[in-house]
Amino acid sequence: MPNTARWAATITLTATAVCGPLTGSALAATHSPAALYAPSSLVLTTGHGEFAADSTPERAVTLSCAPTASGTHPAALSACIELRSTGGDFDALATRGDAMCTREYDPVVVTVDGVWQGKRVSYERTFSNECVKNSYGTAVFTF
Amino acid sequence: MPNTARWAATITLTATAVCGPLTGSALAATHSPAALYAPSSLVLTTGHGEFAADSTPERAVTLSCAPTASGTHPAALSACIELRSTGGDFDALATRGDAMCTREYDPVVVTVDGVWQGKRVSYERTFSNECVKNSYGTAVFTF
Repeated sequence: MPNTARWAATITLTATAVCGPLTGSALAATHSPAALYAPSSLVLTTGHGEFAADSTPERAVTLSCAPTASGTHPAALSACIELRSTGGDFDALATRGDAMCTREYDPVVVTVDGVWQGKRVSYERTFSNECVKNSYGTAVFTF
Repeated sequence: MPNTARWAATITLTATAVCGPLTGSALAATHSPAALYAPSSLVLTTGHGEFAADSTPERAVTLSCAPTASGTHPAALSACIELRSTGGDFDALATRGDAMCTREYDPVVVTVDGVWQGKRVSYERTFSNECVKNSYGTAVFTF
C-alpha cells in the first residue's frame, strides 16, 4: 500500500475509533423504547434583557448529560458534573468566590429548557450583567 | 520513539485533527458576543400520554442546526434539512405517503423547546400512536 493510502486508512480508522463509540452509544440509547437511564437533554439560551419573553436569544447551546456529556455547550463535561452535584437544581449553583464584577446594570437573562434526569425543566434567571452570570458555578452558565 | 508511543501520538494528533475543528468552530460561535448566525438549538422529547404536562418524557434528544448539524438526535443532519425546508414550522412537516399505521389509540406527545434561527420555540403535538409520530417528516420526529 503506498504511504498516502496507508495514512488515509489510519486517519479513517482512528476517527471511527475516537468519534464512533460516542455516536454508537447515543444511537442505542435514544432508539431503545425503554431507555436504561433517565434522559438529560437541555437547551440553554442567553440574551440581553430582564425577561426571556422580551429578549432575543443571542446564544443558544445544547447540553446532554446522559449517557455521556455532549452538546454545543463549550464545557459540557464540567457543566454536567456541576448539575449532578446540585441534583439539577439551577438555583443551587454557587457563585465563585474569585469573581470580580462591576455593579453595572446591563441585565442578561438565561433560560434552560428540556429534561433533567427524566423531569421536565423550564428555568429562567436574570443576572445584573454578563460578568455576574459567568460567576455562577464554574461552567453551566458560562457559554 | 518506540512504536507504541508513536501510535499514541498519531492517534492523539488524528483525533485533534478530526474532532478538533468542530469543537473549535462551536466554541468560536458560542463564545462570540455577536454570533455570525442566529442560533438553532432544540431539545425534543417524547412520552406516552395526551399532554406533555401529564406525561413523563421517556426520550429526549438535542438537535443543533448551526453552525453544523449535531446533537444526540439520531438523524441530526436530515432533521435540520427538513426543518430548514419548512422554515422551522413543525406543523408543516408532511407525513410520508408510504407509512402504514394501525388505528390503535396509544397517544404519544412530542415537545420541542429551544431556539430556531434566533426565535424561541415551544411546541407540543400529540400523535395517536408511535407509528403515526414516526410517519411525519422523514427524520425530525423519528427519535
